[in-house]
This record gives sequence, C-alpha cells and structure tokens, in this order.
Amino acid sequence: MRLALFNHGRLGIVDGDDLVDVTEQLAGPGPYGPAGPLHRHIEQLAAGTVRLPDLAPGLRTPLSGAALAAPLPLPGKIVGAPVNYLDHQAEMEYTTSVADLGVFLKANSSVIGPGEDILLPYSDKRTDQEGELGVVIGRTASHVSAEEALRHVFGYTCLLDITVRSDEDRSTRKSFDTFTPIGPWIVTADEIPEPDALDLRCDVGGTTRQRTNTADLIFGVRELIAYTSSVMTLYPGDVIATGTPAGVGPLSHGERVVVDIERIGRLEVGVDGSRATPYGQRPGRRSAPAPSH
Amino acid sequence: MRLALFNHGRLGIVDGDDLVDVTEQLAGPGPYGPAGPLHRHIEQLAAGTVRLPDLAPGLRTPLSGAALAAPLPLPGKIVGAPVNYLDHQAEMEYTTSVADLGVFLKANSSVIGPGEDILLPYSDKRTDQEGELGVVIGRTASHVSAEEALRHVFGYTCLLDITVRSDEDRSTRKSFDTFTPIGPWIVTADEIPEPDALDLRCDVGGTTRQRTNTADLIFGVRELIAYTSSVMTLYPGDVIATGTPAGVGPLSHGERVVVDIERIGRLEVGVDGSRATPYGQRPGRRSAPAPSH
Repeated sequence: MRLALFNHGRLGIVDGDDLVDVTEQLAGPGPYGPAGPLHRHIEQLAAGTVRLPDLAPGLRTPLSGAALAAPLPLPGKIVGAPVNYLDHQAEMEYTTSVADLGVFLKANSSVIGPGEDILLPYSDKRTDQEGELGVVIGRTASHVSAEEALRHVFGYTCLLDITVRSDEDRSTRKSFDTFTPIGPWIVTADEIPEPDALDLRCDVGGTTRQRTNTADLIFGVRELIAYTSSVMTLYPGDVIATGTPAGVGPLSHGERVVVDIERIGRLEVGVDGSRATPYGQRPGRRSAPAPSH
Repeated sequence: MRLALFNHGRLGIVDGDDLVDVTEQLAGPGPYGPAGPLHRHIEQLAAGTVRLPDLAPGLRTPLSGAALAAPLPLPGKIVGAPVNYLDHQAEMEYTTSVADLGVFLKANSSVIGPGEDILLPYSDKRTDQEGELGVVIGRTASHVSAEEALRHVFGYTCLLDITVRSDEDRSTRKSFDTFTPIGPWIVTADEIPEPDALDLRCDVGGTTRQRTNTADLIFGVRELIAYTSSVMTLYPGDVIATGTPAGVGPLSHGERVVVDIERIGRLEVGVDGSRATPYGQRPGRRSAPAPSH
C-alpha cells in the first residue's frame, strides 16, 4: 500500500492512477499539526489495530493532478548512516564506516516533499545530493536484534540526504531547511519483504550519478535498525536514512534531482540557489565575541 | 513562572512550596502523547494568546511530595553548541569552537527528568557529564538576528549533555537514551531578561566539577539562536543546549549529578552503570557483513 500526503494535508492511498482520500477515516478530525495526519496513526497501522483495507472508500482524485507533499512533514527524528556503501566509502576516502562512525542525526525540520526545491545555502561551498532508501519506523524499537528488526518497520520511501561539504559538524551540514526530501509516498513494509535487494538510481540534471542495489549496503536495513536501537530508542514515525552509494556531486541552481527506487517510486525535487550567500558571511563566523571576563 | 511536569504527566505551576495543577485548564483533555501536556501550548503561551495567570486556580500539591518529571519529555529537536566556553575549548584541545564547528543534534528520545538515572552504555569508555543552560524555543525562528533572538525564547531549564568519549559521530555519543536530563522545570523567559549572566554549577558525587557564569559563553544565547536559525528553523518546543564549561569528567555507578543554575533551579539525577557492556561488543562492531556483490 502506498500512502501519500496531497492537496495541502490530505492523506491518500494510491490505487492505480488514483488517490483515495482517507484523511478523516484514518486520522479523525483535524487539525493534524505540523507532523501531518499520518504520523499519529503509524503505530496502530503497524500493529494492525487499524487496518486501511477496512476503511470506507473515500473520494478519488487522479494521481496525475494531485499536488503531492512529504508523507511525513515532521518525523520524530531522522537518523542517518554516514558511510554505508563500500564504493562511497572509497570515494570519501574514509577508512571507517557506520560500524565505527556510529549514526548521525538530521534535523526533522529539514524535510520537504516532491516538487519542492532544495535551497542551496552557500554560493561558494559544494552542496551534494545523496540518494538513499528511507526507512519509516512503525513500532518502538530498543535493543532489537537484526533478526527481529524488520518487524519494527512501517514502510519505505525515497530520500535525499543533502549535504554541504564544509568542516562543520555533520548534523549542521545535513540539517539546513529543505535538506531531506522524502517521498513521493510511503510504501508499507508488507510490499517489500526484502529491503536489501532494491535497485536505486539518482539522477541530477538528467544525468545518472548514482546507481546501486541496496544489497550493497555495508549495514543492511536489519543491522542498521539493530545498531541504532542499541543507542537510541526508535519510535513510530522516526526515519532512518540508510546511506548513499558512490556518485555524490554538487548541485546547481535550476537542476532537477530524481531518486528512483525499485518497488517504491520516483521522487523529484528542484534546486534553488538564488538565495545562496558566501560561506564567510554566515552568522557568527566573524562576530564571536571575546568573553566578558 | 516555573512550569513543571509531575505525578505521571500532570502540568503544574510552582507557587512557593506548592505545585498548582493546571493540566486540564491549559492543555485540555488528555491523552497528551509522548510530548506531554506542555509541548502543544508553548507557542500560544509564548505569543500571549494563552495566559497562565488567567487560569482558574487548580488543585494544590506540596512541591516536596511531588514526583517531578522532565518538563518536555520529547522536544521537537535538541540542538547543541559543541565548544562554547573558552575554558572547555582549552580542556578539549580544540582550536575551533561553535563559530566554525556549527551545532550538533541530540536525539529527542534521550530526555529524562529529575530523579531518573543516566544509564552508562559502556563499561570501558568514559561517559562524561556536561552541565549546561537549556533554552526552550517559544516562537518559530528562521534567520533571526541576535538582536531579536530572545523574543523567540519560551524559557530556560537546567540541562545535562551526557557524552561518551569515543570516536563515533558526535550525535551518537550524545544520544543514548537518558543522555539529556532536563528540569527540574522550565522558568519562563520573562523571569530571566538576561540569560548571559547566570551562575552555573555542576556537582558529581558531592564534588563541584564545573563552575561558571553564562557570561563566559563564546556564543551567548542570542548569537546561538541567530546562528542556529540560519541553518535550521527552530520551532516551539525545540531545545538548545548552550554548551558546557571546563570540568567535564567521567561518571560512575551510584553517583549523583547536580546542575544548579541561578534563577532557574537545581536538577539532580543518578548514574546507573549496572547495564554497561564492553564497547567492543556493541551491535554491528564485529558483524558488518561483506557486500554480497
């Protein structure tokens, strides 16, 4: 089942060429807050205490005419795997990977959806695309084993982990507003019994930059959930960015970025560099005050 | 005004030696979810569209007999300043500070409250205390100037930024469950017109390890909000850990940790090392699979 947000906060199930509006049936009366109408029901859906097929059929809208948005506009948290494909590990000249680097966090405020624009912050620093498989947690996970990890997954989505190449903390470089496009929808886990065998492609400006299969993940989805849950409890609505393969590269104003993952779908966003400013002019860089005593 | 969570999710205002229960008056009927009854009303309180003094006086409970909890059990996000006192900068042998390091993120799932225990994850790695001033955001802040920054603050709290000394990503080392004690309450911003002039003390096992005044922050609260909001939008209920002075040190099983900040209060938590395991046995460390192709 494919769950999408569309037309300013409506929740829909993709059915062929249509979206079936299930907002009220599933989420009850609004307003739904910044986390959107899906977030609060992920746990019940994952546990099977709410079943989408039981819902009365809602209003149908042609998918082609719907304005899709990020299915989870404000996840609980976003956890990322820093170097999780061998070819990207070589490309970045890292000798360690997620096994020794741990995981990083991206701000949940950095999410955008299909058709929105990545805003480049700096005019003189590279901002790179990183196409990835995104995992949406459905059941609370704390110290779970790799064997039981997939039981905690609600679904999967395409994800871009946008990253500035500078010297600041990884969380800063990856957390600018608009730096985590997700979508076009969430595919529930029952449709993807094996997440570590999906073809993934990422195109920028019409050229394919990244092409891999999630079988090449150093930490597969199971191991990543097991490791992460040994550090921090994962809650329904949290998102894991599983890592990116070789082929990261700089984004330029006006380019289109596409992530296409087998059995999930195609996420496309734009790039807007019109508000980029020089790195040296960022707040505080030149104005750190001397201590007063 | 001091706002506390107590007795399993009740919201109270500290009035002398009492807590006045304002849960229903302020937050409406429950359940309030994992973010607690305060989170959803911070924006209205900060904007003045809901005023606590207008609320009918609620049930009084002696403060001494109340079981206080973290005032915000699940903040939207937790942002930290990595090296923000000159003496700690020297202690850590860093040559750069927040001006060049940017900010980091801690998992919002790492929060505990007064009287709870910090769980030491590793038996053979240092886990250090870092006593800090915590800032709770009240109004959405994006690209705000230092001059207007304090208008976006809801209040202040004592905060411990617990940190493992290992080589993993900073977010991992600071995001273990229980690694962000906050409390004992939130003091609203109107009571602290100048956050950059507060005495701060942190004791471990009865010995004072850290003693500073927030006047010694490299980035003061205003500059920190301005810088952070230039990277990521800050939302009501987000928390900023402003950084720690010199004197960080290892925690041991059974110790008590106290942060005492002038005009805010005294936060005390315990340390539990009974479940610590060797660093080399963490999941994934020895089991990273070779890629299948």
